Amino acid sequence: MPEQTFAHSHSNPALREQYARAGFGGRVGWGERPAVLVIDMAGAWTHTDEQLGSDLSSVLENIKTLLAVARRKGLPIYFTTMAYDPALREAGEVALRKLPHLAKMIRGSERVRLEPSLERRENEPLIEKPRASAFRSTNLLSELISERVDTTIIVGCSTSGCIRATAESAFDLNFHAIVPAEAVGDRSPSAHAGSLFDIDMRVADVMPLAEVLEHLETLPDRA
Amino acid sequence: MPEQTFAHSHSNPALREQYARAGFGGRVGWGERPAVLVIDMAGAWTHTDEQLGSDLSSVLENIKTLLAVARRKGLPIYFTTMAYDPALREAGEVALRKLPHLAKMIRGSERVRLEPSLERRENEPLIEKPRASAFRSTNLLSELISERVDTTIIVGCSTSGCIRATAESAFDLNFHAIVPAEAVGDRSPSAHAGSLFDIDMRVADVMPLAEVLEHLETLPDRA
Amino acid sequence: MPEQTFAHSHSNPALREQYARAGFGGRVGWGERPAVLVIDMAGAWTHTDEQLGSDLSSVLENIKTLLAVARRKGLPIYFTTMAYDPALREAGEVALRKLPHLAKMIRGSERVRLEPSLERRENEPLIEKPRASAFRSTNLLSELISERVDTTIIVGCSTSGCIRATAESAFDLNFHAIVPAEAVGDRSPSAHAGSLFDIDMRVADVMPLAEVLEHLETLPDRA
Amino acid sequence: MPEQTFAHSHSNPALREQYARAGFGGRVGWGERPAVLVIDMAGAWTHTDEQLGSDLSSVLENIKTLLAVARRKGLPIYFTTMAYDPALREAGEVALRKLPHLAKMIRGSERVRLEPSLERRENEPLIEKPRASAFRSTNLLSELISERVDTTIIVGCSTSGCIRATAESAFDLNFHAIVPAEAVGDRSPSAHAGSLFDIDMRVADVMPLAEVLEHLETLPDRA
Repeated sequence: MPEQTFAHSHSNPALREQYARAGFGGRVGWGERPAVLVIDMAGAWTHTDEQLGSDLSSVLENIKTLLAVARRKGLPIYFTTMAYDPALREAGEVALRKLPHLAKMIRGSERVRLEPSLERRENEPLIEKPRASAFRSTNLLSELISERVDTTIIVGCSTSGCIRATAESAFDLNFHAIVPAEAVGDRSPSAHAGSLFDIDMRVADVMPLAEVLEHLETLPDRA
Repeated sequence: MPEQTFAHSHSNPALREQYARAGFGGRVGWGERPAVLVIDMAGAWTHTDEQLGSDLSSVLENIKTLLAVARRKGLPIYFTTMAYDPALREAGEVALRKLPHLAKMIRGSERVRLEPSLERRENEPLIEKPRASAFRSTNLLSELISERVDTTIIVGCSTSGCIRATAESAFDLNFHAIVPAEAVGDRSPSAHAGSLFDIDMRVADVMPLAEVLEHLETLPDRA
Repeated sequence: MPEQTFAHSHSNPALREQYARAGFGGRVGWGERPAVLVIDMAGAWTHTDEQLGSDLSSVLENIKTLLAVARRKGLPIYFTTMAYDPALREAGEVALRKLPHLAKMIRGSERVRLEPSLERRENEPLIEKPRASAFRSTNLLSELISERVDTTIIVGCSTSGCIRATAESAFDLNFHAIVPAEAVGDRSPSAHAGSLFDIDMRVADVMPLAEVLEHLETLPDRA
Repeated sequence: MPEQTFAHSHSNPALREQYARAGFGGRVGWGERPAVLVIDMAGAWTHTDEQLGSDLSSVLENIKTLLAVARRKGLPIYFTTMAYDPALREAGEVALRKLPHLAKMIRGSERVRLEPSLERRENEPLIEKPRASAFRSTNLLSELISERVDTTIIVGCSTSGCIRATAESAFDLNFHAIVPAEAVGDRSPSAHAGSLFDIDMRVADVMPLAEVLEHLETLPDRA
């Protein structure tokens, strides 16, 4: 469904043309050294009975497909979740007031545990991020520089929140950013579609997962 | 017009209720020491014949009203514009490809010159920012800390770009962020309205300008 | 011993005068809202049989004295240690080559465990920092802003490494920084004395612990 | 003279051995894509009659030698100076109290003008930095990422201030950092020698300029 919605935006040539005239929405393309960032595929988002949860099962399957190729090719892979201390000092009063759902993201709880079926490897760092962007107040940037990464493939959830924020940070830092449309999800189909369009116009190249997989296959093995 | 659109979102109680149930859209409220950030009120955005331009005359007037009170009360005030070196090394290849309009933002050009009628004072810093957020790769954060600011009143343009990005940075850093609806503008009315709603749900309190002015009048004079 | 060395530098008026003539070494003084940063008081530094270890028992006692006052007054308190994932991806190749001792700082190990006698409370965040400065790639800055902190009292170890780096970050961000001379330590007495002098000339006010305690007693209780 | 002092430290094998035993002072070596950072070669430091000034004529000549090779090879080159607004809001009260010499660093003044004989090219950005590190509150990081730089060759002044701080930032971000001993200078020979040793032990590889030039000659031309 989300893919269709994105396809719909793509098939709105008038709107794309209007953005293009204002100097938005160019293609950045691939750099030489991609890494995969898997954003917030943890219980608080993937369990349908959670306050923030929704059915992300197809997103999860698509991420697994991507990870299989990325691992075979030896690309750096990073996972994020959100997590605060039990006293919530790490969240801050401003954040807790604006986003009351953050008060449930306690380090070590089931809610912030990564989806086990992703089978994170020991050499794939798990980053506990306090804000929407995976770069904010974390060590991710230093790790990407250490690995000479120049391209971030951003997958997970939510398209309108942490995916958008992470893609914007990557853009701000001059990393190429690629968002495979079927490997990101959101509890709201309209927010998903609107955000994918906005991401594509401003900060990252949104493209079909198949195109991403095809590109990765052309890379030399580093594994 | 934009105000009406925002009012319309405000008058969509079903949508707000849906966000509230997911733990979004709480009120942050005012801190003790506000500052005013005037974002990108320069020729590239305020001249209607520019690629990015639109009629921001009412936004400009509203900002002047706010500045008059802020100056009388002695609040710290900061202006931003965008500006790159003529060779565009400061922009970066990724940014230039995604947002071709950035190639016109050359330091010292008329296009990036602040709207003269804002009458910037010598003690009101002008920040040349390379990205949408006024905090990214600039000295703004250190200046706010030096002034013990805890609240940022964010005005200017564009609502869907630099206003949103600046408000998100402020939120990420635990500054209170206030967006007076009639003092921000966008070339697209629908992007304006949608962004105001999103900003209000996620990172800042959007409120009528009158309410902002009323609050500032209650503050002690620091001038 | 270190205190004597610092006293010695203080008693070198010719050198201080030389720095003063070049425009260094002014007094910053106290802000209004101090917090305490306890840096790296963990096994890797406090156990004398560790590669980086030295006898920090008097430093530890002095920190406890400071914490007792700070807790009574309700000041925000933050602890740091260093910690990497077992695969050391979080450290990075550059760091591991330059500082091979970092390879032992594995999350969850005894080596990076905080000195238990400091009796960290649940509302005193423990920050795992990947670099010398407590601000680098961590959430500390957002937490200080949330608490409206304007002054950082920096204690722990090592004076020539993480204390200096943390004090420089605080200075860069326009936080007042205070280093109580007897509450910081280093495995090398000469590096300790030289660094205290350098810190005092460039980034923070170094002062006797007694003077710090005396100031804190004048503050209103926030506990 | 400074070179001799560094040689002297190098010839103090007992001290180096002591640091090595504690896990400091490893060799990082070269990455694949170096850039040159020329730090603060402006009037405030290079004019001997300035408060911060000293005779940096040999350092200047050595930098010119390095730049000639770097330009021929097409390496990215960045210059820094310090500069504040006339009202000094960009400096901040903390910085002005601790380092009164900063009050003279006014944007556009002769004092902060780059040494003309360096003949900066239009495609070599000039970065106005507000603090010692060239990375703090500037756009340098984004520019390095855009150019896929992994190695920073750091030259200029002062060894004990901005060179050390810039090298530490580079290290923190996992950039390789190289300091050619004869291309950095300081008003104090002892501070110069002590800082070079400390830099070499903690954050960057200090090496003779000849060795740097020799390495650059092995690189493919990108010009």
